Amino acid sequence: MPSSQAPHPTLLIPGPIEFDDAVLQSMSHHAESHVGPAFVKVFGESLTLVRKLFQSTSPTAQPFIIAGSGTLGWDIVASNLAEKGDEALVLHTGYFGDSFAACLETYGVHVTQLKAPIGERPSLGEIEQALKEKSYKVITITHVDTSTGVLNDVKSIAALVRRISPETLVVVDGVCSVGCEEIAFDEWDLDVVLTASQKAIGCPPGLSIVMCSGRAIDRYNSRSTPPASFYASIGNWLPIMQNYESLKPSYFATPATQLVHALHTTLSQITARPMAERFAAHTQASDRVKAAVAELGLSQLASKPESQAHGMTAIYLPSGLAPPDVLPGLMKRGVIFAAGLHKEIATKYIRFGHMGVSVTDTGRNDIDNAIAALKEALAEAKQAKGL
Amino acid sequence: MPSSQAPHPTLLIPGPIEFDDAVLQSMSHHAESHVGPAFVKVFGESLTLVRKLFQSTSPTAQPFIIAGSGTLGWDIVASNLAEKGDEALVLHTGYFGDSFAACLETYGVHVTQLKAPIGERPSLGEIEQALKEKSYKVITITHVDTSTGVLNDVKSIAALVRRISPETLVVVDGVCSVGCEEIAFDEWDLDVVLTASQKAIGCPPGLSIVMCSGRAIDRYNSRSTPPASFYASIGNWLPIMQNYESLKPSYFATPATQLVHALHTTLSQITARPMAERFAAHTQASDRVKAAVAELGLSQLASKPESQAHGMTAIYLPSGLAPPDVLPGLMKRGVIFAAGLHKEIATKYIRFGHMGVSVTDTGRNDIDNAIAALKEALAEAKQAKGL
Repeated sequence: MPSSQAPHPTLLIPGPIEFDDAVLQSMSHHAESHVGPAFVKVFGESLTLVRKLFQSTSPTAQPFIIAGSGTLGWDIVASNLAEKGDEALVLHTGYFGDSFAACLETYGVHVTQLKAPIGERPSLGEIEQALKEKSYKVITITHVDTSTGVLNDVKSIAALVRRISPETLVVVDGVCSVGCEEIAFDEWDLDVVLTASQKAIGCPPGLSIVMCSGRAIDRYNSRSTPPASFYASIGNWLPIMQNYESLKPSYFATPATQLVHALHTTLSQITARPMAERFAAHTQASDRVKAAVAELGLSQLASKPESQAHGMTAIYLPSGLAPPDVLPGLMKRGVIFAAGLHKEIATKYIRFGHMGVSVTDTGRNDIDNAIAALKEALAEAKQAKGL
Repeated sequence: MPSSQAPHPTLLIPGPIEFDDAVLQSMSHHAESHVGPAFVKVFGESLTLVRKLFQSTSPTAQPFIIAGSGTLGWDIVASNLAEKGDEALVLHTGYFGDSFAACLETYGVHVTQLKAPIGERPSLGEIEQALKEKSYKVITITHVDTSTGVLNDVKSIAALVRRISPETLVVVDGVCSVGCEEIAFDEWDLDVVLTASQKAIGCPPGLSIVMCSGRAIDRYNSRSTPPASFYASIGNWLPIMQNYESLKPSYFATPATQLVHALHTTLSQITARPMAERFAAHTQASDRVKAAVAELGLSQLASKPESQAHGMTAIYLPSGLAPPDVLPGLMKRGVIFAAGLHKEIATKYIRFGHMGVSVTDTGRNDIDNAIAALKEALAEAKQAKGL
């Protein structure tokens, strides 16, 4: 454990995650004007670092960093990139598909959900068929649904959309994927990836981070009605982001200065190494977790290897055990996992987040410790229940 | 300067403001689950502390703490407490009246602005007349407009509204007033006070804080159309806030955990003393600043004493001087003021924020140092310009 943090159980839920010491300390920066040159530089550089995070060099792509939760990213999409009466196709792989759909519907967008059974994902064939049935303004893909740990094949879906319905904007909810799952924004020809600061990016929660393609910005600019939100309006934020990145102060709403410092630190750390290395480290850690889960005779919600996330694992508990039987035993061993979130089966599974410093700082031994704790806590719980 | 912060110029803009050491350090708390008992307690207590901040004991009043900028509070009002086609009366005392009006209009609300000349405020007579001309669903009052330093008499306006148009919701933009200007939420019978974390509350920016009356919640519940925002929806947040305050975990979007820790610390400090003492301290500091401004032969944007804010002072520069002539001289002396913000006269004035620890921690001498620096910087600037 880093020396400046008090001893504490290791947070291995699928976000928020453990903080690197330097990231945490960045927030203790003294007060600065949000329009003063020092902070303008930090904010401007953070925007450029977001481009690097997404491996994007496209001058028409536009990053946004806005005070808010990841959820705010849905409003940014729904209130700017679709209009009342437009059609949206939502690929549903868990809780967050329903929520994104609810957000789109709030703004009058008609939603068709393509739902996979729990633990599965819509196939490319099903998606192709759906795309042929209606003209969709946007398709939304939860890259990793935090409620199920199901990973979507964003690259293939984006290629399919470009082939079948080239005008449809490809929107990726990357809250549980950015920083741990491969994303090549330009190369995959994505239109929006929205995320939050507190998962694999390793920053405290409180920032909504959105990357838009030139095509997405064009869609915004060609709206026939004004944007349907004020705080989430691309029009209100676009000049601000462009100005800050050009190191010019600008004001629409006060940025979360201390969180931006933390973001700057963590993105500097992340992008100092090739992103491919970071993705590989998460894949390796995930493979170890998945192997241990199999060894324990347990199964994952995500039923097929190709649809299993690399930053988290959703694990079915043995029959007869519920999260409250196991989580306290983990806590006793200094490890925090999350309970289930998918409402239909919430009492049947637990979630293990393996992202950020717990993966990349191997000296912490977080993953091995957690696997050992899981083994012991399960054995203890089974014994207590006479299983 | 507190020992744990690096030496730095004193931030005396009208927000963000200087941080108390303990508040800043609170953000270095190790990572916690947003639904774990430790954080649930901190968040729940913070909500209760918001009630104390507003001197409210009404069980039907409801505080909200949401990741976002103060601006988000406008969307919360506009998308929940008014419906498309409703009428709103906006009292305009500067930049923020126009912005709140723009936000309301985004959601289809018809806005009538009652504009006072720069530095003045609409009179009670004018407000009474406006209220009699139309049936308004909401009236919005910028308690202190950060662009002009003009203070509105919220207590008298609220009483007037109750007498003339009792169904009109009284909405106060308290971004630049909560924590330094007197507000008695229940006693004044207010419906909404929205604010942000980074001004007189003394927390870093990134939290939108909104206090709603039972009448406001009833208005939300009796909408004939669904709320017009997802992230800003009272319906989405209300059960979350109620659960956290009852110390039950709940999830809609991940809260900004580290900022909530900072908020808890600063609200604990603030509410440990009677609020009246805090308001008096800000009035005394403000009186000293205003006396010094007068002594320098300068005038304020806020032309009448009763309409002058107590947490900031907007000061007209001597003819021939612009902010870039004076601000660097202040910076050289370790003091940061803000330039003008009101677009019509931005080059003619500067803004001095006197809130929070710079006022209450008198051992810092921030106010006296700033007054001395202002005197010297002005003299220097005049000499340089041959004035």
